[in-house]
Amino acid sequence: MAAFPFDGPSQEASRLTAFAENTLDRRSENRPRDCLLTALRDHRTLAYAVMNGRLLLAFDEATPAALFPLAKLASLGADLDRAVLLGFASDMAPRLVVPVSTEAEDLPVPYKAVDYRSLYMQALLPPPLLGEVAQGASLIAWNDSARYCGRCGGRTRSECGGYRRDCPACEKQYFPRTDPVVIMLTVDEVKDRCLLGRSPHFRPGMFSCLAGFVEPGETIEDAVRRETLEESGIALGRVRYHASQPWPFPHSLMLGCYGQALSGEIRFDSTELEDCRWFSRSEVRGMLSHPSEDGPATPAEGTIAHRLITDWAFREG
Amino acid sequence: MAAFPFDGPSQEASRLTAFAENTLDRRSENRPRDCLLTALRDHRTLAYAVMNGRLLLAFDEATPAALFPLAKLASLGADLDRAVLLGFASDMAPRLVVPVSTEAEDLPVPYKAVDYRSLYMQALLPPPLLGEVAQGASLIAWNDSARYCGRCGGRTRSECGGYRRDCPACEKQYFPRTDPVVIMLTVDEVKDRCLLGRSPHFRPGMFSCLAGFVEPGETIEDAVRRETLEESGIALGRVRYHASQPWPFPHSLMLGCYGQALSGEIRFDSTELEDCRWFSRSEVRGMLSHPSEDGPATPAEGTIAHRLITDWAFREG
Repeated sequence: MAAFPFDGPSQEASRLTAFAENTLDRRSENRPRDCLLTALRDHRTLAYAVMNGRLLLAFDEATPAALFPLAKLASLGADLDRAVLLGFASDMAPRLVVPVSTEAEDLPVPYKAVDYRSLYMQALLPPPLLGEVAQGASLIAWNDSARYCGRCGGRTRSECGGYRRDCPACEKQYFPRTDPVVIMLTVDEVKDRCLLGRSPHFRPGMFSCLAGFVEPGETIEDAVRRETLEESGIALGRVRYHASQPWPFPHSLMLGCYGQALSGEIRFDSTELEDCRWFSRSEVRGMLSHPSEDGPATPAEGTIAHRLITDWAFREG
Repeated sequence: MAAFPFDGPSQEASRLTAFAENTLDRRSENRPRDCLLTALRDHRTLAYAVMNGRLLLAFDEATPAALFPLAKLASLGADLDRAVLLGFASDMAPRLVVPVSTEAEDLPVPYKAVDYRSLYMQALLPPPLLGEVAQGASLIAWNDSARYCGRCGGRTRSECGGYRRDCPACEKQYFPRTDPVVIMLTVDEVKDRCLLGRSPHFRPGMFSCLAGFVEPGETIEDAVRRETLEESGIALGRVRYHASQPWPFPHSLMLGCYGQALSGEIRFDSTELEDCRWFSRSEVRGMLSHPSEDGPATPAEGTIAHRLITDWAFREG
């Protein structure tokens, strides 16, 4: 067992997924009480603006702009009470995410609201900004779902620039929620094939890895085996972690693994999947190298499913 | 890159941690509405009883009993409205966890309330039961913290035997929360030593791995590097996942990793740690093989920190 068999951080599988890069200094555990107020008054502050799961972009330059001075967002209905301090850029300028209330169809030129998925599918933002948007989207979603205390029903208030919510009534503190999700490529080493499934809500022809939430009291490896058995009927032996990815829908942490198939007969769960089958390595290589309109397709580059499938299909040996 | 370099499930590092084993069939995604009611009426049902972070044990046999028929719990103030269905045993008998209201000091003979930590420290339960207790403890804690809707403040109600909570007022659904936490052993490969820290609340002499919550929009690897830099001042290069562990305090998922040290000078965060230093491999082997009363000590067997430290200290090469 070699201690560090992988390449350095820049080449690690997790870094090669969308939303993974982020160079902000969050300082989330070391924030003064008035950190948000200070950031709102700092003229260097730049902010992302979000609205119902979409990011505001300005299309007046060659590359769309996603970061705005706060003054620019005022006319769009910026809700500064719900702003979250993401952290600090390399020049120490505060960086925020701010919900805006203007409806997407009422946005003036040159603004457009773009859903988070399209941001990486269409490569609209450089990777570090994509990572900051994931962080911001997750925090806005969590704050919105924790406005009341789950224990006593009292109104909570945002602290630490949106990194904590306190209940003044019963004094309980709430911290951001991140949901661990296992996503796995099951590999049949003997027949050199992998297992992919199709959910009814996928775009036509697309097949992907199986996935599911980690349950309370469960290891990653057992979650991979349980979900695979439940969804496909395939029993797994060994499980190997490969990469993780922040996934802001609304605040998940994808845990990408390989699973070793111990059986071959698929009995898929038709309430979750509309198809599930084995794909040979050469078939998968073809899907990745020459995507066709009508044939089976893999998930888009940037997804951790794409990473798992690619790293298996083209690995040596 | 070999696909499955590790041993089978029974030998995987995750399985060798406390709380990791669990053979119940949870069926959490496929439960009828009345599943809890059915279980409460089933004479085969056995239940764990919990009270303020402790488990009820009966010490009337050679080995303490942790599973009770519901009738036995009635006189202890069993709160069946807050019961959670964990799943089904191999004979299909339902298994529950039930909060009881009797205070620990008022418990009749032969009952005692034992905190979850002592359960594995003193090996009071066989491993599969320990895993079920972790599942139950996490679910009870989550249900108690989600009695009101975070979005609208309405009273939520338990569904799916405690695996979901619904808000009748705004129709939002809540699912159990699991907090991913990175815990890492930083290894200096050149000097063949590892980094351990001491939190002020540790028992005297104990040193352990550094750890911290994964933040929104962060990969496991970046969380390991960030927390290590924040707490110790040591910069990390490569990060390798080793094992995971369910940790019911109150509902975490420990993600155990190794980190490659790129620097050697420690500047530890004195708000979190009271000491942090390098330990040579031979020093660590000594701590593991011949624990002394007064010398530095490692965390107890069963913890993922113990697993990370042991697997590094005794690995070949």
